[in-house]
Amino acid sequence: MSTFDAVELIRTKRDGGRLGDEAIDWLIRAYTDGVVTDEQMSAMAMAIFFRGLDATELTRWTNAMIDTGERMDFSSLSRPTVDKHSTGGVGDKITLPLAPLVAACGAAVPQLSGRGLGHTGGTLDKLEAIPGWRASLTNPEMLAQLESVGAVICAAGAGLAPADKKLYALRDVTATIESIPMISASIMSKKIAEGTASLVLDVKTGAGAFMKTLAQSRALATTMVGIGNAAGVNTVALITNMDTPLGRTAGNGLEVAESVEVLAGGGPADVVELTLALAREMLACAGIDADPAAALVSGKAMDAWKAMIRAQGGDPDAPLPVARHTEVVPAEADGYLSRMDAMAVGLAAWRLGAGRAVQGEQVQAAAGVTWHAAVGEPVQAGQPLFTLHTDTPERIERAKEALVGAVDYASAPPELRPVVLERISAES
Amino acid sequence: MSTFDAVELIRTKRDGGRLGDEAIDWLIRAYTDGVVTDEQMSAMAMAIFFRGLDATELTRWTNAMIDTGERMDFSSLSRPTVDKHSTGGVGDKITLPLAPLVAACGAAVPQLSGRGLGHTGGTLDKLEAIPGWRASLTNPEMLAQLESVGAVICAAGAGLAPADKKLYALRDVTATIESIPMISASIMSKKIAEGTASLVLDVKTGAGAFMKTLAQSRALATTMVGIGNAAGVNTVALITNMDTPLGRTAGNGLEVAESVEVLAGGGPADVVELTLALAREMLACAGIDADPAAALVSGKAMDAWKAMIRAQGGDPDAPLPVARHTEVVPAEADGYLSRMDAMAVGLAAWRLGAGRAVQGEQVQAAAGVTWHAAVGEPVQAGQPLFTLHTDTPERIERAKEALVGAVDYASAPPELRPVVLERISAES
Repeated sequence: MSTFDAVELIRTKRDGGRLGDEAIDWLIRAYTDGVVTDEQMSAMAMAIFFRGLDATELTRWTNAMIDTGERMDFSSLSRPTVDKHSTGGVGDKITLPLAPLVAACGAAVPQLSGRGLGHTGGTLDKLEAIPGWRASLTNPEMLAQLESVGAVICAAGAGLAPADKKLYALRDVTATIESIPMISASIMSKKIAEGTASLVLDVKTGAGAFMKTLAQSRALATTMVGIGNAAGVNTVALITNMDTPLGRTAGNGLEVAESVEVLAGGGPADVVELTLALAREMLACAGIDADPAAALVSGKAMDAWKAMIRAQGGDPDAPLPVARHTEVVPAEADGYLSRMDAMAVGLAAWRLGAGRAVQGEQVQAAAGVTWHAAVGEPVQAGQPLFTLHTDTPERIERAKEALVGAVDYASAPPELRPVVLERISAES
Repeated sequence: MSTFDAVELIRTKRDGGRLGDEAIDWLIRAYTDGVVTDEQMSAMAMAIFFRGLDATELTRWTNAMIDTGERMDFSSLSRPTVDKHSTGGVGDKITLPLAPLVAACGAAVPQLSGRGLGHTGGTLDKLEAIPGWRASLTNPEMLAQLESVGAVICAAGAGLAPADKKLYALRDVTATIESIPMISASIMSKKIAEGTASLVLDVKTGAGAFMKTLAQSRALATTMVGIGNAAGVNTVALITNMDTPLGRTAGNGLEVAESVEVLAGGGPADVVELTLALAREMLACAGIDADPAAALVSGKAMDAWKAMIRAQGGDPDAPLPVARHTEVVPAEADGYLSRMDAMAVGLAAWRLGAGRAVQGEQVQAAAGVTWHAAVGEPVQAGQPLFTLHTDTPERIERAKEALVGAVDYASAPPELRPVVLERISAES
């Protein structure tokens, strides 16, 4: 491999130039090996924040990060593989009903997930509310489960794109997270390394999402779809509404319970709608002609859920943990709920113990927030609006503070955005 | 002192916001103490590269860097203090005749200097060509010499603005040197900490300077003049031409010899003109009504030079070292020299041994380049154009390579820019 001068490469990007293919390969490898220092990569990240990476640079950058680690191989499976990634939102438990639902329709869903940090919960934290369930699988265990059950939700191994892991930690402490090319490369490097044939992205937009505007979300979706298809992964994105939290619950065990409701054919309308929309995209990508709504009604999706939980040591029929303390927050006015601040709800759930402040911290399985009315619904002053759940009652005051001003009331039903706002594919 | 979040401050600057006074104080102190990491300061430096620092931020930033170290105090001197700083150019030996000249007129010139790195030579390296001369003085020695001789050229202690030292080293490896606010703060923090009452800046412009265009040089000069005057240092800048190297020599001992010629009333016209222009500005700043040209003619400037060299252990009458090998590079065509590439000449001198590639390396006292014709003068093909000087003849080939294409020939005398192009003061 050629050798480059890190300072020269930073200067090139800083001044609006392009990084060549070999320069990118060298940079990512040299950074992973510690030859390019953290302070140099941090300056490069800030230069990229301002100057961007074009499609060619981005594809190479993503591939270079993948090449620092292992690539999984699902080609031995008899089922077509299809995965889903969400950019993160409050109350976003969609992975839980979605993976078994799509598996029930014949696909293999290798959902390698992470833990939560900050106001959005982690999928693994949610499933760990189920007694006995374990997040860690070996690669052979994962393959076997994908063939037999069709769905795996497990911890991503450290072997996937280690350059991304190192770079993400650096970006986190240098205010260089908020860069569409680097966000895209980070997500897509892990998803491509994971070896899925198809991928459906759920790109959130709105007040509760990382991307606040439709234009930002569209740019992120388009960039990721471009990287995925360039790497041979059949990739489609839905841009979905995150003005308000999804469903009626935010918290680990609370969200598992809500997901089980959906798998039983019930559940909140927005969660059902988004689950089905993503399932249809995933099945289409995988070339499977099946109606996911029928799999909910028939109970096949629930069967796949139970099989998936059991395969990872969990008891799907065991009662979920219940919080030792609850407190009701009443509605303050009569009217239609016209706004519910997803960030505030997420923060309240986090403060109640559902999330962690630093990596490695324990989370409470039963902590979280439920809301008894959703945006668009009428409420009366004094009726229960939120219920707060926690094992540690001293957390309640600060959670309530987070919810001050979190909802608005209106005299008429508000205009609501649809759940799915746009679809971005390689053709769009 | 308040505590701030480094990531939040980087984000503020990245997004075009202002850093508050206390935030800047904290950042610089915390960086010096290692609380803010190198990777965070590097991201901040790149954000400043793109977003800049306004006049208020810059004054505070400079003061915060000064406050990490000692401030010198020359208030006990009977002479008014005035210093000069050049942004660096090839063949720029002006400090050598200038400091004793201004001292001979009654001022105290505390010229704290550095060593060279890269294609421009360091003032200390030049003076070390004089047998016995030493660059290191204690503060009491410096004060005594300023009172008795009026001029000191010595090594800046590590105690002045240590934050700048650390930040400069970081910027050097992260491609964040080329930022006018950060260059200005770096230079001015050291000059203000040095405790001079007045300061004249020689801001070079042109092909051989760091700032290639008049607009860039004007921006740098204006920014530095602003910082200096805001800090109570009477500061003026001259923007001077660096299209071509100054004088007829580039190299340590060679430039000392040329400086002595100027002090003896001779020397190249451009060196004399720039020395007198800067001397007049320095004397005006210091409130001294004297004619520096007369001090050259009378020999008073030469007396001050000899006293200055002797006070630091040097023998001003000892012969300067002579290179063991010389080689002549002839002119390739007839005509008027219309261009001489200062960078190429500086690079050739460096390759001959006059400069160092890494800090701490030894330099050759006698190595360098002399040119027998300057831009604007007629030459004939085959006449000596350059003489290369070195103690290590194996360096000659690569020096000659640096000079390939370094000059142009024209059939008529070229239009030349004046030596002094503009003057920038607090009023302009």
